[in-house]
Amino acid sequence: MLKKYFPIADWAFPYKKSNFRGDLTAGLTVGVMLIPQGMAYSMLAGLPPIYGLYASTIPLIIYAIFGTSRQLAVGPSAMIALLVGAGVSQLASPGTELYITYAIFLALMVGIIQFGLGFFRLGFIVNFLSHPVISGFTSAAALIIGLSQLKHLFGIQIARTNYVHEILINTFDQIGNIHMPTLLLGLGGMGLILFLKRMNKGIPGSLIAVILGIIIVYLFNLDETGMKIVREVPQGLPSLFLPSMDGGIIRDLLPIAVTIALVGFMESVAIAKAFQSKSKQREYKVIPNQELIGLGLANAIGSFFQAFPTTGGFSRSAVNFQAGAKTGLASIISAILIILTLLFLTPLFYYLPQAILASIIMVAVFGLIDLKEARHLWVSDRKDFYMLMVTFLSTLLIGIEEGIIVGVILSIGMVIWRVTYPHVAPLGRIPGTDLYRNLYRFPEAEHFEDILIFRFDAQLFFANTSYMTHKLEQLEEEHRGNVKLVILSAKAINGVDSTAIHALKDLAAAYKSRGIELYFADAKGPVRDAMVRGGLVKEVGRENFFGAVHEAVQYFRRVEMERFGQNIVLQTDHIQNQQN
Amino acid sequence: MLKKYFPIADWAFPYKKSNFRGDLTAGLTVGVMLIPQGMAYSMLAGLPPIYGLYASTIPLIIYAIFGTSRQLAVGPSAMIALLVGAGVSQLASPGTELYITYAIFLALMVGIIQFGLGFFRLGFIVNFLSHPVISGFTSAAALIIGLSQLKHLFGIQIARTNYVHEILINTFDQIGNIHMPTLLLGLGGMGLILFLKRMNKGIPGSLIAVILGIIIVYLFNLDETGMKIVREVPQGLPSLFLPSMDGGIIRDLLPIAVTIALVGFMESVAIAKAFQSKSKQREYKVIPNQELIGLGLANAIGSFFQAFPTTGGFSRSAVNFQAGAKTGLASIISAILIILTLLFLTPLFYYLPQAILASIIMVAVFGLIDLKEARHLWVSDRKDFYMLMVTFLSTLLIGIEEGIIVGVILSIGMVIWRVTYPHVAPLGRIPGTDLYRNLYRFPEAEHFEDILIFRFDAQLFFANTSYMTHKLEQLEEEHRGNVKLVILSAKAINGVDSTAIHALKDLAAAYKSRGIELYFADAKGPVRDAMVRGGLVKEVGRENFFGAVHEAVQYFRRVEMERFGQNIVLQTDHIQNQQN
Repeated sequence: MLKKYFPIADWAFPYKKSNFRGDLTAGLTVGVMLIPQGMAYSMLAGLPPIYGLYASTIPLIIYAIFGTSRQLAVGPSAMIALLVGAGVSQLASPGTELYITYAIFLALMVGIIQFGLGFFRLGFIVNFLSHPVISGFTSAAALIIGLSQLKHLFGIQIARTNYVHEILINTFDQIGNIHMPTLLLGLGGMGLILFLKRMNKGIPGSLIAVILGIIIVYLFNLDETGMKIVREVPQGLPSLFLPSMDGGIIRDLLPIAVTIALVGFMESVAIAKAFQSKSKQREYKVIPNQELIGLGLANAIGSFFQAFPTTGGFSRSAVNFQAGAKTGLASIISAILIILTLLFLTPLFYYLPQAILASIIMVAVFGLIDLKEARHLWVSDRKDFYMLMVTFLSTLLIGIEEGIIVGVILSIGMVIWRVTYPHVAPLGRIPGTDLYRNLYRFPEAEHFEDILIFRFDAQLFFANTSYMTHKLEQLEEEHRGNVKLVILSAKAINGVDSTAIHALKDLAAAYKSRGIELYFADAKGPVRDAMVRGGLVKEVGRENFFGAVHEAVQYFRRVEMERFGQNIVLQTDHIQNQQN
Repeated sequence: MLKKYFPIADWAFPYKKSNFRGDLTAGLTVGVMLIPQGMAYSMLAGLPPIYGLYASTIPLIIYAIFGTSRQLAVGPSAMIALLVGAGVSQLASPGTELYITYAIFLALMVGIIQFGLGFFRLGFIVNFLSHPVISGFTSAAALIIGLSQLKHLFGIQIARTNYVHEILINTFDQIGNIHMPTLLLGLGGMGLILFLKRMNKGIPGSLIAVILGIIIVYLFNLDETGMKIVREVPQGLPSLFLPSMDGGIIRDLLPIAVTIALVGFMESVAIAKAFQSKSKQREYKVIPNQELIGLGLANAIGSFFQAFPTTGGFSRSAVNFQAGAKTGLASIISAILIILTLLFLTPLFYYLPQAILASIIMVAVFGLIDLKEARHLWVSDRKDFYMLMVTFLSTLLIGIEEGIIVGVILSIGMVIWRVTYPHVAPLGRIPGTDLYRNLYRFPEAEHFEDILIFRFDAQLFFANTSYMTHKLEQLEEEHRGNVKLVILSAKAINGVDSTAIHALKDLAAAYKSRGIELYFADAKGPVRDAMVRGGLVKEVGRENFFGAVHEAVQYFRRVEMERFGQNIVLQTDHIQNQQN
C-alpha cells in the first residue's frame, strides 16, 4: 500500500549501498547538464534564466518520491518551455512581473490537471495521440523553437511570434543589424557542443560552452560591444510563492495548461518506458497513472517554489541512465547540486552571453526534426503520412496549441472512422474444401449466386451496425436479386451490444418478409451468449445457427433439395389431376 | 445525375398512373391526421396552433422533391416540438412575437445544419446515438411531454418547465383549481382516441375527437364556463418570412439547433429505413446523406413560409404506408389538403378546446415510454441498461438538451473504451491437436511455462497498442519470469497502423535485450503487407513469422533441442578439457 502511493519506498527503505556510486555519478552529471539547459529553456519560455534553475530543484525531489521511473530526469524541457511561452505571451508581456506570475501559476494548473488525470486513472487518454501526430507536432515545434533563437544568435531584436514565416520575415528585415561578435560566438558554441557530443556523449558540452562563453565575454569585454549577456542572476533559494488568480485568468490559461499537462505526460511516460525496458532486471515498473500523479505533484508543489512547468527530458534521462543511475536518489543529488549553485554560484553567470544559451537550444531541438519518419510513412502508410503532415502544417501555420488540438481531433476522427467502417468481406468456397475465404482476395473461391456469405471483421456495435446493413445491401445488389440465403460469418465478431442485436432482429425480419433466409455461422461463445440473452436466437430460430459456414451451406442445399423434391411430387400430382 | 440530386425524378417523370389511387387515399388520410397533430404539437412547442398548419405545407412538398423515402410523412413532431419549446423558452416568453420569430429562425438553422451534414456526407455521425441512448432519451422526453400537458387537461395555469418534479409539484399546488368540464372533455377525448385506435388504426381518431370537441363546446357554450379554447385562427396562407438575426442569438440557438437537426434526422432515417425494408419490391433506397439534404431543405425553405422545425413522424408514416402511399405524391396531396384547410376551414377551429389537443399529445407520447426495452436490457446487456438509465435520468433531471449530450458523450466514451480495451487472450494447445485456444475458456488447453501465446482480437492501432504491451506484461508475470518465447497470434488483427508497427518494433527490441524471442503467427495478408512496408519484418527477421501458432511452437522446440544438444556437446568438451 505504502509502496503503491510512495514509489520511493521501493528503493529508499532500505537503500542498497551498491546503488550509491552510480546514483552519485549520474546525479552530478545530470545536475551539471541542468544548469545550462535550465537557463536556456527558461529564456525560451520568456522568463529570466534564474527560473530555469528554480524549476530544477523541488520538482526533481517530488518526482523522486512519487514517480515510478528511476532514471527519468525531470526538469525544464524545450517543448514545454515553448508551450509556456506561446500560451502566456498572449496574456502578458514577456519579462514582466505579471508574465512570471502567470507562468508559475500555469505550473500549478498543469500539476492539478495531471494529478487529477492520474487519480481518476485517465492516463489512457494519451493513447489518442498517435505516433504520426506526435512526430508532426514535435518536428514543427522544434522548427519554431530553433528559428525563434535566431534573434539571439544574430544579436538582433524582433517581436516574439510563433509563426515560422513571421520569424523568417522579421529576421530578414533585421539582417543588416546582425551583431557579428554575437553570431561568431553563437556559431562557435554550436560547433563546440556538436563536436564534443560526437566525441563522447558523457562530456557536458553545454556546460563547457557556457564556461568558455563567460570567460571569452569577460576577457574581451564583449558586453561593451553590445553583446547581450544574462547580467544579474539573483542569489539564493526561491522564495515561497502563493498565487491567487481570478477565474478569468484561469479560464484563459486552461487550454494551454491542458496541452502542457498532456504533452508533458506523454513525453515523460514514453521516456520512462523506454528506460524501463532497457533495464534488464525489470526491477521496477512504470505505471502511467502513478506517473501522472508524480509529475502532477512535482509541478503543483514546484509552483509554490517558483518553478514553471517541467517534465522528463530525453537527453538528460539518457545521460542519467548511461552514467549509472539506479534509483531516484540520482535526481535528488542533481537537485542538491542546483540548490548549491543557486546558493553560491549565480554571480558567475553575469557575463554568460545569450547567444550561447541560444546555441544550446538550437543544438537540442534540431535533432527533434524527424524527416526520416515522414519519408518512412510516405512509403509504408500513406494515411499516417497525411496525419503527420496535417499536424505539422497546422502547428506551423495555425498555431502551436491548435496544432496539437488538430492532431487529437484527427486521431479521434481516425478511431471513429476505423470502428465505423471495419473490414468486411463476401466469402466464397475454396473448391474441394470446406473452407470459405474472402472472394476479393482468393480469385479461385467459388461464388454462389443464391447465397450471400458475409464476414464482419470487428465487434458489432452501435457505431457500425448501419455500415453492416449498408454493406449487405450493396453485396445483395451484386447478386442481382437472386439471393435466397444470407449467411453471416461471425468468426471475427468479438462482441455485440444491444443495438447490434436490434439491428440483426430487424435484418432477419426484413429478409423474412422478402423470402430470404438468414443463417449465422461461426459465432464465438460470448457472442452466442449475448445473442441468446438478447432474444435474437429465439426470434431467428435456433436451427439457423451453425458451427461453420460450410455446415450452413450444406443444410440449405439439403432443405432446398427436399423442397425441390416436393415440388416435383406436387407437379406430378398436378399432372395426374389434369389427366384424371 | 438528376435522379441523384432530385429523387422526385425517380417516380414523377413519368408518374405511374397505377400509383395514383394509393397516393390519393394515403395523402388525404395523412392530411386529415396532420390538422389536429399540427395544432397540438404547435401548442407543445409554445406556439399558436396555426403554426403547426404552416409547418404542414411547404416542408412536405420540399421533402417530396429531395427526400429518398416515398412513405415518410414529414411534418411537426412531438419530440422536435418539445425541443423547440425547451430551447426557445430560455430566450423569449412563449406566445410573444419574439418567441415565434426565434422558433421559425430555428427551423432555418436546423435546415442549414442538416443540409451541410448531408452535403459533406457526415450522416454517419448519428451512428453514435446508440439504441439504449435513444430509448432512454425518448422515454424521458415522452414523460416530460405527457406531464407538460396536464395543465391543459386540468384547465389550470402553471409556469412552463421541463423538469418533471417541478411539473408535478406545480400541478399539485393547483389541484384545487381543476376545471372539471375541461378535465372530463380531455379524458373523454383520450378515451375516444384510444378506443378508435384499438378498433381500427385507419380511423382518424384525433380528427373525430377534434370535431366532437368543437361541437360539444359550441353546443353547451363551454367556453363561457372558463374552458380554454383555441379562438381566432388566422385564415390564409403563411406570408413570406425573412428573418434577420444578430450573431448573439445565433450562438444561443446553436446548441438546440444542432440537437434538433440530429434528433430529427435520426428519427426520420430510422422510420424511412423501416418502411423501405417493408416495401417488398425494394423499388427505392433510402440514402441517409440525401435524407439530410431533403430534410435540411424542407426545414430551411419551410422557414421562409413560417414553418417551425419538422421531421418525419412514425405514426403518420405508418398510416401513409398502410393507406397505400407509393410515392411522394401522397405527401404533396397532404400538403394541398392543409393549404385548402388554411384557405377555407380555419374559422371552424374557433371553439376547439385545448384539452382535446392535450389529449391528442398525451395519447401520442405515452406509447413512446419504453419500459420493456429497459427490462430487456437489464436481463440481456447490463452495460447498455446503465447507458439507457443514465440518459433517461439526465434528460429528466439535468435537462432535455443536456440529456442527449450526455447520451452522445456516453456513446463516444463507449466507442473509445471498446477500441482501447479490445478482447485479448492467452492461448494454450488443445492436447493432441495443432489447435490453440483461449486458456481462460478451454480449461483443457495446455499451458506452456516458457511460451507465452497471445491473441489480440482487434485492429492494432494507436489507441490500443499500449493496452497490448500492458497485457503482455501482465501475462508475462503469470509465467513467473520463465518466458523464453512470446508468440503473437495475429489471426484476429484486421489492420495495423504505423504507431502499432513502432510499438511492435520496440517490443521486439525490448524482448531481445532480455533474451526473449518474439514470433508472429497467423497474420493476414494485408497485415503482413503492412508489417513488411513498415520495416517490422526486416527488423524482427523473416524467419520469426509463421503461418500458424503450432508451426511457431514446433520451430522453437526444434531450435531449443539443437541448442540443448550443443550445450551437451560443449559440456562434454568442457569435461574433456578438465580431464586433459
